[in-house]
Amino acid sequence: MIQIRAAKVTYNRFQSIKYNKKPKFAVAGLRCLSTHSSAPTLITVASVLVLCSLETMSDHKATLIDGKAIAQTIRSEIAAEVRRLSQTYGKVPGLAVVIVGKRKDSQSYVNMKRKACSEVGIKSFDLDLPEEVSESELISKVHELNANPDVHGWYFSTASLPKQINEEKILSEISLEKDVDGFHPLNIGKLAMKGRDPLFAPCTPKGCLELLSRSGVSVKGKNAVVVGRSNIVGLPVSLLLLKEDATVTIVHSRTKEPESIVRNADIVIAAAGQAMMIKGSWIKPGAAVIDVGTNAVDDPSKKSGYRLVGDVDFQEASKVAGWITPVPGGVGPMTVTMLLKNTLDGAKRVIEQ
Amino acid sequence: MIQIRAAKVTYNRFQSIKYNKKPKFAVAGLRCLSTHSSAPTLITVASVLVLCSLETMSDHKATLIDGKAIAQTIRSEIAAEVRRLSQTYGKVPGLAVVIVGKRKDSQSYVNMKRKACSEVGIKSFDLDLPEEVSESELISKVHELNANPDVHGWYFSTASLPKQINEEKILSEISLEKDVDGFHPLNIGKLAMKGRDPLFAPCTPKGCLELLSRSGVSVKGKNAVVVGRSNIVGLPVSLLLLKEDATVTIVHSRTKEPESIVRNADIVIAAAGQAMMIKGSWIKPGAAVIDVGTNAVDDPSKKSGYRLVGDVDFQEASKVAGWITPVPGGVGPMTVTMLLKNTLDGAKRVIEQ
Repeated sequence: MIQIRAAKVTYNRFQSIKYNKKPKFAVAGLRCLSTHSSAPTLITVASVLVLCSLETMSDHKATLIDGKAIAQTIRSEIAAEVRRLSQTYGKVPGLAVVIVGKRKDSQSYVNMKRKACSEVGIKSFDLDLPEEVSESELISKVHELNANPDVHGWYFSTASLPKQINEEKILSEISLEKDVDGFHPLNIGKLAMKGRDPLFAPCTPKGCLELLSRSGVSVKGKNAVVVGRSNIVGLPVSLLLLKEDATVTIVHSRTKEPESIVRNADIVIAAAGQAMMIKGSWIKPGAAVIDVGTNAVDDPSKKSGYRLVGDVDFQEASKVAGWITPVPGGVGPMTVTMLLKNTLDGAKRVIEQ
Repeated sequence: MIQIRAAKVTYNRFQSIKYNKKPKFAVAGLRCLSTHSSAPTLITVASVLVLCSLETMSDHKATLIDGKAIAQTIRSEIAAEVRRLSQTYGKVPGLAVVIVGKRKDSQSYVNMKRKACSEVGIKSFDLDLPEEVSESELISKVHELNANPDVHGWYFSTASLPKQINEEKILSEISLEKDVDGFHPLNIGKLAMKGRDPLFAPCTPKGCLELLSRSGVSVKGKNAVVVGRSNIVGLPVSLLLLKEDATVTIVHSRTKEPESIVRNADIVIAAAGQAMMIKGSWIKPGAAVIDVGTNAVDDPSKKSGYRLVGDVDFQEASKVAGWITPVPGGVGPMTVTMLLKNTLDGAKRVIEQ
């Protein structure tokens, strides 16, 4: 394929061209020019334009938002702050995890968080409880953690507690000052309300916003579309985006024609939990795409028999988007990092008060 | 203008025709047909179609959502429930208002609410406090109301308390079980979260949803656009619409091109506080338009020198919308009615427990 470096045709100049379609402008130019039989030079120029635009399109690659690298930077900042607290006050932040039962997936998640804590100097506490724990026992443990001055934040290792436990009741027992997951309804209420601020914003949504700001993507006045409305990601990330002055649309399973809505988005937050549901053709050229999904799909070429993919078709979308997060290595590392950040913030409120 | 009743051309058949533009379909038909000089009959038919569609467009009137009448129906339902409680348990719901200072506007608002209570059999309590009331005095009064078993709900008569009072602190002292305004952040948090329900939803937003459902407008799967994001209307109405499975977009002062977003709405909730900012050309034909705005504009023809208008240009929008609320007489009467309803619900939880 001919390369016309001097032409400096950038993808941005073809933003009006929809993904996977012929470059309309250039083709229209060709058709128009071809009616003038006396204009071979012009036809050549037009042909070059077509080739050039085709090449630019296929060559276009969104800027990769490297969640791993950004998370590492933030962790260094946290580590520095933890050192400062330790040197100034002789105290370090403490993060506790309550593990109910022995689920393998939550164990590995806990291990990852424990390691992250140790890297930045945050003290880890583990509280192992049997699957059969009673509600009253659990509540008394919750109260112990609330009262422990060395624990500045704590969370449950699993999203779903055993069936004998009334989850809503337990979660409302968490001290607001230690709710580093940010899931207490009072924290969510303050996140929603104008002029109010929660003590902690939920980690994954906070991580999404951090990825955007550290990539130089401003949110104010932008059309942001959130796909998914879970309490953990979709809903709180919508509220955070609204607080940052984005025009927010929440798309979900009941939405008719989600693709036409996503196509208007300057910022897409994909948190539907559906493997590669968002195609390249859904993405507005130049948009920032944050993919929260982590879905296992069969892959016989892998030793494990599966691979992880996001809610976005990365291969397609990265040819259209302006910025995109990979899966894995995008939002994932940010969630744990924001948990560390919330713990640090909680500790600072207590230690520096 | 010729009327072709037999043709049964309804406005719905021209939904694709944008407001204030020529009926494209019919005009295109005319142009196409006029190239056949041998088709005078067809041209006549086409002309009739044009006239007919023009007539239908100018004649179109949205179904008026009569808030006054709907409110009256609901108040009768409430009155019946209050009678039942009184007959069965010898108790009636009680609603208290805390009036700080002597602002004229809040006094008339209070009088209106007091009258509404008396009509349905709800007992009214007034608590008059001077403008200079201290925070600690106010808090002790709040605690008294929280403890009073005859008061099932209470609210402040004004949205803004005197400057010596920390509003956030005071509002968080209201017992959740008596927060009939539904503004406690914990109530807002539960309103936002999937699988949670607040004890009370804020009155105006609840009234908007009630107007839709009692007019036969379903919300599920519809594109709803909320203009405005206040804690009192815009935000909570967005959360309610989302809970009812609408695809929700929140438009606000930082939104670029709000008209293009509103134009996609099957349901518009206008709560921006800007007189007639939403024009007829913003409205999708057939949409349901709920106008929360109440703005005073100069009108020398009125004795008072002003008249009340909504956030929507009613004259224009009613020619395009499928349903529309008037101002006044739309959302207004519903707000007070939902306050009565919340008080009844609060009382039932206590009396019938």
